Amino acid sequence: MKFEIMRHRLLDALNDVMKAVSSKTTIPILTGIKLEVTEAGLRITGSDSDITIQTFIKAVEDGDQVIRVMEEGAIVLQARMFNEIVRKLPTSDVEIEVTEKYDTHIRSGKSEFHLIGLEPSEYPLLPDIQDDRHFEIPADLLKSIIRETVFAVSPSENRPVLTGVHWQAKNGELVCVATDSHRLARRKVTLEQLPEKEYSVVIPGKSLNELSKIIGDSSEPVQIVMTDQQVLFKTEDVLFYSRLLEGNYPDTSRLIPTEYKTFVTMNGKALFQAIDRASLLAREERNNIVRFSSLEENIVEISSSSPEIGEVEEEIQTTSIEGEQLKISFSAKYMMDALKAFDGQDVTIQFTGAMRPFILNSVKDNEVLQLIVPVRTY
Amino acid sequence: MKFEIMRHRLLDALNDVMKAVSSKTTIPILTGIKLEVTEAGLRITGSDSDITIQTFIKAVEDGDQVIRVMEEGAIVLQARMFNEIVRKLPTSDVEIEVTEKYDTHIRSGKSEFHLIGLEPSEYPLLPDIQDDRHFEIPADLLKSIIRETVFAVSPSENRPVLTGVHWQAKNGELVCVATDSHRLARRKVTLEQLPEKEYSVVIPGKSLNELSKIIGDSSEPVQIVMTDQQVLFKTEDVLFYSRLLEGNYPDTSRLIPTEYKTFVTMNGKALFQAIDRASLLAREERNNIVRFSSLEENIVEISSSSPEIGEVEEEIQTTSIEGEQLKISFSAKYMMDALKAFDGQDVTIQFTGAMRPFILNSVKDNEVLQLIVPVRTY
Repeated sequence: MKFEIMRHRLLDALNDVMKAVSSKTTIPILTGIKLEVTEAGLRITGSDSDITIQTFIKAVEDGDQVIRVMEEGAIVLQARMFNEIVRKLPTSDVEIEVTEKYDTHIRSGKSEFHLIGLEPSEYPLLPDIQDDRHFEIPADLLKSIIRETVFAVSPSENRPVLTGVHWQAKNGELVCVATDSHRLARRKVTLEQLPEKEYSVVIPGKSLNELSKIIGDSSEPVQIVMTDQQVLFKTEDVLFYSRLLEGNYPDTSRLIPTEYKTFVTMNGKALFQAIDRASLLAREERNNIVRFSSLEENIVEISSSSPEIGEVEEEIQTTSIEGEQLKISFSAKYMMDALKAFDGQDVTIQFTGAMRPFILNSVKDNEVLQLIVPVRTY
Repeated sequence: MKFEIMRHRLLDALNDVMKAVSSKTTIPILTGIKLEVTEAGLRITGSDSDITIQTFIKAVEDGDQVIRVMEEGAIVLQARMFNEIVRKLPTSDVEIEVTEKYDTHIRSGKSEFHLIGLEPSEYPLLPDIQDDRHFEIPADLLKSIIRETVFAVSPSENRPVLTGVHWQAKNGELVCVATDSHRLARRKVTLEQLPEKEYSVVIPGKSLNELSKIIGDSSEPVQIVMTDQQVLFKTEDVLFYSRLLEGNYPDTSRLIPTEYKTFVTMNGKALFQAIDRASLLAREERNNIVRFSSLEENIVEISSSSPEIGEVEEEIQTTSIEGEQLKISFSAKYMMDALKAFDGQDVTIQFTGAMRPFILNSVKDNEVLQLIVPVRTY
């Protein structure tokens, strides 16, 4: 194997692939990344066995010679070390040559590294994925869907299936739900070319977080292929594989209240900032609980206190408050997470009493729903 | 006490004072900062008992009313909490009022915090410093002096005096030396109005690091006042006090070789980058040792290896190599630290054999000297 490549293109590709490589892996070869060069270009693969990322750099891009291939071949190199070396090389070109066995030479200017590589045929093969159930989502919409739901997955492995986001396709609609049983985030999106057959998968939250870092903010389509054990996200240059979580995801639809007793419409950003301030004191109490009370004249009061340090209260003018008077307490963190999903838009909050879960929606549509279970303090 | 202040001026001042406040203090009142307001302005003090920082905000600055004082007074408030509150307040003005006892109200817009303060008279008094021995250094020069020496102090408390930088004023010259006994950094600077009496103090490295973050990059003078136990750095708005270290600083002058066998002149930046690359492999061996060898035709080779991972070698063209051929090994970290002090300038390196300390100087002058003890590997 011998080729020369533009260093910044190699760095960009490594940046993506490294997101799949974990230093904690128990499978030694997965501390490495696999490089495969052919006349067509360079393929790089990294994996932690849950997530696998593969990128392809074409030898010629838009008429520019990015890679000059002298000899085709493959090698596995220590991922972290190789990445750091490429990052620090002195010139804009890198030559990589595997001589006898796995001896790998990395040359740039007058700098020459010699690394001991690993046998490429020992690197795990990619999951075998048939294209039977696939659809497309624009990259920026996919990022939104992830951002609006993934924060609500459970951090605890007690119920592994809750560490993932439930994706369900049915009747031309994709519904994504995450819950840790104290709160729930749901995003619905209508997609034209969803496969006819109904299906449902649970994608690990960690995979979605890493995916979100890799895909761009463009409206370029991302192709999504589902199988029973794996999901594949495909962009022009990158293949992102994630294993799926096993087990039945709980039916969450019955948790969502359908009637309300108090209905508040207000600015999401103002509420977020008031809760952010109130949580300064609430955090000291470990539980991070803030109080929310409806007052006269469409005013809401946010307050919290810590016996040793002090207290805070703040009034916010809402657009409207309909229905019963209300005093309710909830986690400042959950409310701030939920409000972030609305990105500062005006929101509606529907309460059905101080002890019942309440829901937030955008005033504009019901695509995003956030549910929070309150805390008993009154 | 009651006053109103422009929030961004209060934030700037807190930003400085907070650098003295430690959450690890064993003296409860030092988790607080002291606010004292008079018609003239607001004085804020923070301290961890080693470092004390005091800033003063004038009520009127350049004709602008920064503070409106309704009632003079003083209070001590939880430093971290107060700082975070001010950072998150909704409007550009803050009103602070102490009502009965230590009840403190912080108001901004419709947000009102109520903190329980502490008795201001219990806050420690500032060290009593007589202006007998003082001199001035421009702020940017002071920052350079710190940057060029402080990294070489010992991180270990085995010999406490080595955790500080030795400042010695003699014959119109200030000499600053730091050493951890494996390397040494020395900065000399000629100052016009040094006090006649010779004196020498050891300033804790930690204090100098914090000071460096507070003083600006301007050429505004910083006044320095020395006493036996304390040093005070004075700028227009800030008083920065540090305790001094006790004990005799070792005489380091005899450690510095005065003759050489090999004399190399080369670009500091090229050497830094080559060692940075070589240390990628050297780090894996824990000792972080790189080799430096003089070759024919004014070429230096930097190399390092790790049996399990591989090796690296790199040639650098120097300006000149005079004297004996040389192979020497040293800590990549020490060399990189030393080269940073020269800021990419061309340097001279004077070696007196593979087992003897060697010194670096700028080609331009001898104001900065760096000494490194090599490591036996050949």
